[in-house]
Amino acid sequence: MAKINASYRKLAAGYLFPEIAKRTRAFSEANPDADILRLGIGDTTESLTPTIVDGLSQAVQSLGTPEGYSGYGDSEGIGALREGIAEMYAGTSIHADDIFVSDGAKSDSSNIQSIFSSDNVIAVQDPAYPVYVDSNVISGRTGNATEGVYDGLVYMPCTAENGFFPELPSQKVDIIYICSPNNPTGAVATHAQLQRFVDYAIENKAIIIFDSAYAVFIQDDSLPKTIYEIEGAEKCAIEISSFSKSVGFTGVRLGWTVVPDAVTCEDSEPGEIKKLWTRRQNTFFNGASNIVQAGGVAALNPAGKEEMKQLVSFYMENARIIREGLTKLGITAYGGDNAPYVWLKTPEGIGSWEFFDKLLEECHVVGTPGAGFGPAGEGYFRLSAFGHRANVEEAVKRISEQLKLG
Amino acid sequence: MAKINASYRKLAAGYLFPEIAKRTRAFSEANPDADILRLGIGDTTESLTPTIVDGLSQAVQSLGTPEGYSGYGDSEGIGALREGIAEMYAGTSIHADDIFVSDGAKSDSSNIQSIFSSDNVIAVQDPAYPVYVDSNVISGRTGNATEGVYDGLVYMPCTAENGFFPELPSQKVDIIYICSPNNPTGAVATHAQLQRFVDYAIENKAIIIFDSAYAVFIQDDSLPKTIYEIEGAEKCAIEISSFSKSVGFTGVRLGWTVVPDAVTCEDSEPGEIKKLWTRRQNTFFNGASNIVQAGGVAALNPAGKEEMKQLVSFYMENARIIREGLTKLGITAYGGDNAPYVWLKTPEGIGSWEFFDKLLEECHVVGTPGAGFGPAGEGYFRLSAFGHRANVEEAVKRISEQLKLG
Repeated sequence: MAKINASYRKLAAGYLFPEIAKRTRAFSEANPDADILRLGIGDTTESLTPTIVDGLSQAVQSLGTPEGYSGYGDSEGIGALREGIAEMYAGTSIHADDIFVSDGAKSDSSNIQSIFSSDNVIAVQDPAYPVYVDSNVISGRTGNATEGVYDGLVYMPCTAENGFFPELPSQKVDIIYICSPNNPTGAVATHAQLQRFVDYAIENKAIIIFDSAYAVFIQDDSLPKTIYEIEGAEKCAIEISSFSKSVGFTGVRLGWTVVPDAVTCEDSEPGEIKKLWTRRQNTFFNGASNIVQAGGVAALNPAGKEEMKQLVSFYMENARIIREGLTKLGITAYGGDNAPYVWLKTPEGIGSWEFFDKLLEECHVVGTPGAGFGPAGEGYFRLSAFGHRANVEEAVKRISEQLKLG
Repeated sequence: MAKINASYRKLAAGYLFPEIAKRTRAFSEANPDADILRLGIGDTTESLTPTIVDGLSQAVQSLGTPEGYSGYGDSEGIGALREGIAEMYAGTSIHADDIFVSDGAKSDSSNIQSIFSSDNVIAVQDPAYPVYVDSNVISGRTGNATEGVYDGLVYMPCTAENGFFPELPSQKVDIIYICSPNNPTGAVATHAQLQRFVDYAIENKAIIIFDSAYAVFIQDDSLPKTIYEIEGAEKCAIEISSFSKSVGFTGVRLGWTVVPDAVTCEDSEPGEIKKLWTRRQNTFFNGASNIVQAGGVAALNPAGKEEMKQLVSFYMENARIIREGLTKLGITAYGGDNAPYVWLKTPEGIGSWEFFDKLLEECHVVGTPGAGFGPAGEGYFRLSAFGHRANVEEAVKRISEQLKLG
């Protein structure tokens, strides 16, 4: 008599983005003429750049020839791509064989918990990307949720009061998820802020899961682009990153995880955690698509990198436009300077989902309610800088002219 | 103080294929002039067909244009592909919305267990594709292994004596993995054989995980190509399948899982297991690459299907050549008629790994030791029909001329 994994029943609600899609669809059906602008889900909108299209095309053509055909590759990824990614870590201790290529940061950030004990206590920034929480709920590391707050999970509030970076947890925790540049708040952790967490992790034999999917958007060179810029991080931190936002691979699917040899925890020797991740990937995954990996290699050649830079600048200009528009309206806005997300304080203290409905109804603009990212996100709202310029400008115009404030 | 998932330490040995790669590499380094022929891992060798190359190319070009660009898609896959796959199930109760597109059958067959309770008792055919076993070991559903046999796991022996299809398990089991056409034995289950298991599953509220990754190789039309040809299967069976072998997507990565609404178990209502898989995929996966999915759509159009048929015929002719060669030598061989694998009884009762070394040393041919697929595989050996024709012919020639048989 088979039974289901009952932890699924603990999940407090549908995954955030399907809920947004559902509400948007309902509005759209009720208002078929409404031209809805989407700044909700962080989905890229600009076409792939020429160098990447060339790289992908060559791979496809090559697979159609006897000489160029290839089947199974190493689950860790092709050598050229691992080398190219490792170059981004120049100046740190990270090498190509620490890089595990994957089909995206979402897969890795949800699966990474599976190599750790189900008894571990998990700490997340609050608000946080929902996948960190949901993957641990499903894997049995929490109790039930009360109003969206899971028993047994340690929430580290990130609010305007602490500059959107948390204090060290007051109770002992084992696995700590940190995202910087932060989704959803757009805040970037400083060297000093990260050093405190690295020191804590080493002292307490904890593991940091560091999500740097938005690192390429950092404009301020004094801010760390990887946790491995922090002294000691290679002993306690696993970093997860992505091609999704930097080169528009949200649908193409490519990411990576860095597991240094030195990373250890309470009951493992150096090298063992890396071996576990290798084994996990060898058993549950068969490598990212060879075509897509060729696209990744192209993205990292000099022409590809130049195009990436331009694409990032484009989205960052969108972010500037959004933040400026909101500020002019008297709305307090954060982020958008080193990240493609603008995090605004909802006007007049209204709730996040209430603001979602208001923005949709009055402006036909879709954003993401802060409360969907965790309890401390209540009263905040995320607008994404991913969008065609004309749409971003139109969205800001509508918010400026149509949003009914006090 | 973080701890690792200690179940990883229960894994009896390295994953089979890395071990083969290791031994092959060692031999190759010691014998740099040896021209090694690989009929071990079931890796495709023939180039992608023109219709698929066109489909992939168009998708790539399209992503380079503002009109054709797309980002995140539904994690379940694009509609056209789900429709195309559903057409393969014509005559059964399966519809497009039962189809969940993925990056391959390996991911799905390893992850499917995660939606079920960790208390469930697992039954596998013996020999079996190692991923079924390893994914359950890692997820804590077994005890330790003694000589490769895991405590708490129910092995259902498949040998020449029972025509390589198991009896019903004598103890109650909850989740049953069945692969047909079988990897590694090449045997195809009949309607009657599958009906017995479906009846058992319904009576005992068990779940069947049916792996049909090789269904397209079935030549005998009287044999079932999907478990949904069996009465009642939609109430108890989840089917996993793949584009890897049928169109050479081992490196390109595309597969699917079928979860009908009606499938239930002890503690679930109809529809709930499907919802769990949807939630699992929405949380741990972000959809197969949009480029690759376009290739899948092309593979299922009329021209693509015709090319698939020719490719399958090509590999099946390889299988015939291998089986015929072995038979001529007096080696007892099975499979190869409705599956791209030939399963031979090792001559003179020598061990599987001993035969692996012998074949490598005497013929410079790599195959797969039956023992690597489970205890009942000892004394058997798998040769794969995936290979260039000249290589397959040369391998058979070498085995015929160079293998030292008592």
